[in-house]
Amino acid sequence: MLIGTGASPGIAIGKALIIENEPLKIEKKHIDNIEKEKETLINALNESKTELEKIKTKAFSELGEEKASIFEAHIMILEDPELIEMTNTKIEGNVNAAYALKKTADEFIAIFEVMENEYMRERAADIKDVTDRVLRKITGQKITDLAVLDEEVILVAHDLTPSDTAIMDKSKVMGFLTNIGGRTSHTAIMARSLEIPAVVGLKNITKEVKNNDLVILNGETGIIEINPEEETISKYKELKEAYERDIKALEEMKGQESITSDGRKVEIAGNIGTPDDVPGLLRNDAEGVGLYRTEFIYMNRETMPTEEEQYISYKKVLEAMGEKPIVIRTLDIGGDKKLPYLEIGEEMNPFLGYRAIRLCLQEQEIFKIQLRALLRASVHGNLKIMFPMISSLEELLEAKYILNEVKEDLKNENIEFSQDIEVGIMIEIPSAAIISDILAKHVDFFSIGTNDLIQYTCAVDRMNEKIEHLYQPFNPGVLRLIKTVIENGHKQGIWVGMCGEVAGDMRLIPLLIGMGLDEFSMSPISILHARRLIRSLSYEKCKEIANEALELGTAKEIEDFMAKISKTL
Amino acid sequence: MLIGTGASPGIAIGKALIIENEPLKIEKKHIDNIEKEKETLINALNESKTELEKIKTKAFSELGEEKASIFEAHIMILEDPELIEMTNTKIEGNVNAAYALKKTADEFIAIFEVMENEYMRERAADIKDVTDRVLRKITGQKITDLAVLDEEVILVAHDLTPSDTAIMDKSKVMGFLTNIGGRTSHTAIMARSLEIPAVVGLKNITKEVKNNDLVILNGETGIIEINPEEETISKYKELKEAYERDIKALEEMKGQESITSDGRKVEIAGNIGTPDDVPGLLRNDAEGVGLYRTEFIYMNRETMPTEEEQYISYKKVLEAMGEKPIVIRTLDIGGDKKLPYLEIGEEMNPFLGYRAIRLCLQEQEIFKIQLRALLRASVHGNLKIMFPMISSLEELLEAKYILNEVKEDLKNENIEFSQDIEVGIMIEIPSAAIISDILAKHVDFFSIGTNDLIQYTCAVDRMNEKIEHLYQPFNPGVLRLIKTVIENGHKQGIWVGMCGEVAGDMRLIPLLIGMGLDEFSMSPISILHARRLIRSLSYEKCKEIANEALELGTAKEIEDFMAKISKTL
Repeated sequence: MLIGTGASPGIAIGKALIIENEPLKIEKKHIDNIEKEKETLINALNESKTELEKIKTKAFSELGEEKASIFEAHIMILEDPELIEMTNTKIEGNVNAAYALKKTADEFIAIFEVMENEYMRERAADIKDVTDRVLRKITGQKITDLAVLDEEVILVAHDLTPSDTAIMDKSKVMGFLTNIGGRTSHTAIMARSLEIPAVVGLKNITKEVKNNDLVILNGETGIIEINPEEETISKYKELKEAYERDIKALEEMKGQESITSDGRKVEIAGNIGTPDDVPGLLRNDAEGVGLYRTEFIYMNRETMPTEEEQYISYKKVLEAMGEKPIVIRTLDIGGDKKLPYLEIGEEMNPFLGYRAIRLCLQEQEIFKIQLRALLRASVHGNLKIMFPMISSLEELLEAKYILNEVKEDLKNENIEFSQDIEVGIMIEIPSAAIISDILAKHVDFFSIGTNDLIQYTCAVDRMNEKIEHLYQPFNPGVLRLIKTVIENGHKQGIWVGMCGEVAGDMRLIPLLIGMGLDEFSMSPISILHARRLIRSLSYEKCKEIANEALELGTAKEIEDFMAKISKTL
Repeated sequence: MLIGTGASPGIAIGKALIIENEPLKIEKKHIDNIEKEKETLINALNESKTELEKIKTKAFSELGEEKASIFEAHIMILEDPELIEMTNTKIEGNVNAAYALKKTADEFIAIFEVMENEYMRERAADIKDVTDRVLRKITGQKITDLAVLDEEVILVAHDLTPSDTAIMDKSKVMGFLTNIGGRTSHTAIMARSLEIPAVVGLKNITKEVKNNDLVILNGETGIIEINPEEETISKYKELKEAYERDIKALEEMKGQESITSDGRKVEIAGNIGTPDDVPGLLRNDAEGVGLYRTEFIYMNRETMPTEEEQYISYKKVLEAMGEKPIVIRTLDIGGDKKLPYLEIGEEMNPFLGYRAIRLCLQEQEIFKIQLRALLRASVHGNLKIMFPMISSLEELLEAKYILNEVKEDLKNENIEFSQDIEVGIMIEIPSAAIISDILAKHVDFFSIGTNDLIQYTCAVDRMNEKIEHLYQPFNPGVLRLIKTVIENGHKQGIWVGMCGEVAGDMRLIPLLIGMGLDEFSMSPISILHARRLIRSLSYEKCKEIANEALELGTAKEIEDFMAKISKTL
């Protein structure tokens, strides 16, 4: 038995398939027909490019635009004239194409690998990945083809790469197990959106499991069993059935109100990235959209999306959701999200850098086009506009000023837009949380972005494994800030929502109810769970719990307290 | 007239010297004596290495260990076997050494320069710098030699590199002007520690000024005058004299108490990096050391400093300062500070990463050696130990637990140490500030580290120029946190100090006095200024000012309010 981080709920029982490929063998051969070898190289490069284009397209439709952009970078390596020229020079010395390419790639890689800088070393890995693909084409050496799986399997990998999840045959994959990653890692997010059970951060699972081992994984508890006793298997089969029954039972929550046993009504909304996510929202009976991340419209393309393209995308979501409220967040690009057509430059600490509203207030043309598209779309539904990464009152006032300018423009052009669009901000930077009493006077709502708020409040990059233990959703400092924000919002009579991971965390929902949170926006798959939980809670009791929890000094104490309390609720 | 950021006080009037070098001209030549060319290459590499070693040594003694480590990296490039081998291969084709090296360097640079990643592009600049030095050796082409200046000058540069400041003849340099940088940039910090007036962040000063232009710079206001009228020159000459008189008048502050007009006594201490900084402290009559940054002992060397080496270094400072309190901060490595013998790995966001106490709690052997050295040194003076980057109660308790273990070890070994060492923490992470009521129960003091506290509270990397305007010392969120920390400390009866840039900012000192700050630790050159200011203030009045300022909504409003108020004080 092993324990990792439960990353996507559900139980899977099945055979392990370890994603690990045979090392490539490339031999040096003397060749006479130089032109033929050059042709071999070009053909293999072209085939690999076509393959990567397909993976990119599949990734685009199944995993979203952000993931797809990674393959764009891989394709660019294949097109590097220096790489091709250096390989051709070697071929001209009567060397076979495979060996010439391997040597050239090794030269590139050698330069990068010795660098102290991890970015450079990673670039070496990219070059290796891509040239390996070409070399396998030239030499006809196969790799585990995840697109064609013979039987149902549980995938075991160091980490799942975007290309793995893009090409794999999802009907045959029952679960994921990985060595690295946490609840907010890409593998975890992908697993939840594909509704595949997953456990991540298992450290050494690729070594501890062999191909065809019978593996059981519990995506909730993070527990893994390898070749268990018959007894354990039966136990988990029962649990699996119970889980599936439970999923069915959740169906009853559809159409119900999200209301506590003593009558406190809240709203449970969903987080989405593209109009394609709307069916999932409707299937899970979301009461609205608490966060529509518009950056996906901007990603994986060569030019800025036009006003018209954006308008169509926003309209689509607004119309699909009818009267339900849709909070659309303005562009949150920068940080770890880059656009090929917008030079931001590399930053030493991108999470503390030039991104989101900071960028929009500088690049006002980009911002205004989005605001125009949003305003125009507003007539098709219940739109609310939200600004991300506000750290000061100045930025908020400036953003609102620009919004008003755009409204004036539309008025002058006789273009219709809704007259009662609520305007709100993300509270995800500590300074904004601390002065939320002041900010509340200038907005219609707050939405607390816990992913970033935890990151900044605790000074912890949530992607950095070495300090994962310090990224604490139960951190008392963070919880106090959340409480302050809700209280300050309510004092000014505005509603306060939350759209970070914490909003969908069943362990924390009683606390948030107790603090008075009005809206919870989460992954669509969590919505019915949250509704069932909230309907079982007493608001008055939750208030007491919240007060008691906030007296505690450590995240661990609060987590333990909530675990204990949850049994009595 | 131009305005930049005043980075180091004082007025300079003099001729501009622009640091910009003639581009190198390297011609391709056919050579026959291959061995001779190879020898030329090796000799030039060795000469450059010797030169860089000298610069490194000079940097080490004049600028500290951190700066010196940069040259270590440059020397490593010269020793790269790939670089030498590739150049020799070219020489073997009967090409002159200079051209062969130039071509090789260009090949390396071409690979790095096209990378999107800025780190890689910067690596290209490193390679260029270093190989240019070698090429100038081979071809005998000179560069502006800052080590030998004929007359007094004001240096004008895009940015001053560490090698510039290391080698320059400081007796001839009257001021610095740079295109980039802010108050906390390296050039600014260097200028203050060399007590040379400087204005940074002038955007395009290298283009706007020509060599031998008469330039006036005011390091306080950030104002620059280029070839001014005679009238302006006289005005500034008077100002310069007044400034120098003022510096003299400050002498009177020596030996005085740091006390407000109505009797509130505080302590003004200094920030230091090495025992070499002690004379500056004593010259400026520091009442103690509020921050001794121990990382310099660890930097610019190949192996970990031994317990004995550390002991000697701590003892030296403790003895030199007599009875005065010395707050020694335990190792704050990581982030932007790396050690060659400790593999931390590159991080996506080093400021939100694995550093300081986070690293020490993992690498306990390193931590314990430092704590042993500190405890042993404690008998030689008034030592206080401070842990950096505390974000939670758990980390504090763990650090204290380890300190007690080390105390037990020493007791068992009959090694003496002081029995009344105060233990405190840096408050530089928002979560720590927010739960400072809880943390205060477990420490003897707090020291607020405003540089990081602003950075995390506002989610702004202070080195990132694009968002410089969001790094706000007057940010109301930050100021409220500071007030909370001081109040929480006092409620538990502990003293609260500050060791970030804000502590030495005359515009903010009245606010901090009003909030009740007990200790101010700053650059030694600010100490007497601060003392004179504090002696002119009324504590009661400052309390009112602080309350009024904290009602304001923006950094700008608070800054303006303080500027207005300061005239009435």
